[in-house]
Amino acid sequence: MSIHSIVVTGANRGIGFGIVEQLCSLAPNKVSYIIATARKPEEATQLKELASQHENLIIVKLDVKDYASYDQFYNQVSSIVGDKGLNWLINNAGILVPVNFETATPEQMIENFEVNAVTPLMVSRKLLPLLKLSATQNKARTQIINISSDLASIALNNPSASTGSIGFIAYRASKSALNQVSRSMSIDLSKYNIHVSMVHPGWVRTDMGGPNASLSIKESATQMLSFLLDESKELNGKYLSYDGTEIPW
Amino acid sequence: MSIHSIVVTGANRGIGFGIVEQLCSLAPNKVSYIIATARKPEEATQLKELASQHENLIIVKLDVKDYASYDQFYNQVSSIVGDKGLNWLINNAGILVPVNFETATPEQMIENFEVNAVTPLMVSRKLLPLLKLSATQNKARTQIINISSDLASIALNNPSASTGSIGFIAYRASKSALNQVSRSMSIDLSKYNIHVSMVHPGWVRTDMGGPNASLSIKESATQMLSFLLDESKELNGKYLSYDGTEIPW
Repeated sequence: MSIHSIVVTGANRGIGFGIVEQLCSLAPNKVSYIIATARKPEEATQLKELASQHENLIIVKLDVKDYASYDQFYNQVSSIVGDKGLNWLINNAGILVPVNFETATPEQMIENFEVNAVTPLMVSRKLLPLLKLSATQNKARTQIINISSDLASIALNNPSASTGSIGFIAYRASKSALNQVSRSMSIDLSKYNIHVSMVHPGWVRTDMGGPNASLSIKESATQMLSFLLDESKELNGKYLSYDGTEIPW
Repeated sequence: MSIHSIVVTGANRGIGFGIVEQLCSLAPNKVSYIIATARKPEEATQLKELASQHENLIIVKLDVKDYASYDQFYNQVSSIVGDKGLNWLINNAGILVPVNFETATPEQMIENFEVNAVTPLMVSRKLLPLLKLSATQNKARTQIINISSDLASIALNNPSASTGSIGFIAYRASKSALNQVSRSMSIDLSKYNIHVSMVHPGWVRTDMGGPNASLSIKESATQMLSFLLDESKELNGKYLSYDGTEIPW
């Protein structure tokens, strides 16, 4: 089933870039418009090189915290996708403020929360008219995918879990909040037939994950896309690992 | 088992006041020092009246968002509790910003998050030296109780649950973040033998809960205290309803 259009935020590097790269590797008519956002497109060298090779990849500037720029962003996306609207929104832009109980300041807690939990809500609401256009016309599922983390799991934040007791209190709190925001969105948007899921990309060798992580960017991106593209898999309101298995809240 | 000292934040009304009232109703030697904080002690009429009747109740000024005032607050609490330190810290101060997916602004999301998820961390860290003093000396359990909500539950945020689909996205996200912060604290502070739990007070007839809520303040407070006072009940890292049952994350 062909997909009209996809937006991926924070696509200049890491998981976001990996997802865009894999989307570009699909058959050229699989996704008509892949819109990759970057805070500083002029510095997004990898992304620009990829776009020079793929006509369906368009780079658009977006700083997710710059709410005053959202009108302009909306207009740009709208002029690209046109009347068929937006099929997928992948809220990938995120940060990790590496602080723990002993060190976290209120400003750091808020910074991590705003980028990771608030901006996905704001970007989604801004693009909602385009998502609604898609949901009423396109056969392929219309969906919002919020890139979460297994560190969002409150159940797994315990000393015996593999993800337990390693600090990152600001990041964890921001991603748990994102999961809750996502669940509310999955309820609120179901009336428009828009699905909302949370996906943990795995521990990936990115700037954030570090060189010792277990997965390459490509391994993570291909596995996530395999179930996101699978229209038979129920995604709405789910918190899924890169391999498609559910993670406890 | 007698308790040396308890701090309850946001104790001028609602659940906080109810907890203080019930603590005052215990035998006079059960808790030596009940420290009730209020943003504006001069306006806390109920609390002042109660304090006039109970020698072990002391009102101390605290605006949990006024981080610059924390040194002064610490010194006041320290001078009251002395070398035996602080047995219980009940982080009760909280707000509900009544916004949903359609209406929430970034500022409202952040305001709800800061008060409900960040300040409990900051107050706990500030009072940690006094909690450590207690943990090494007092027989009664040393514990931090973070007042949460069943609206914090991500699992229960679904259309079929009784708490489902009623919006409050900012409040829900802030309380889910608080649960995650609490879980991290329950791990980080276990080395000091300080227990950390999250407690849902029930739907209570307060300014926040409204007149149609199912529980009186007294019913909620007495039930919460019955298990918080029960030294045989395991509390560390748990998310419990007012009746002592666990709530899914």
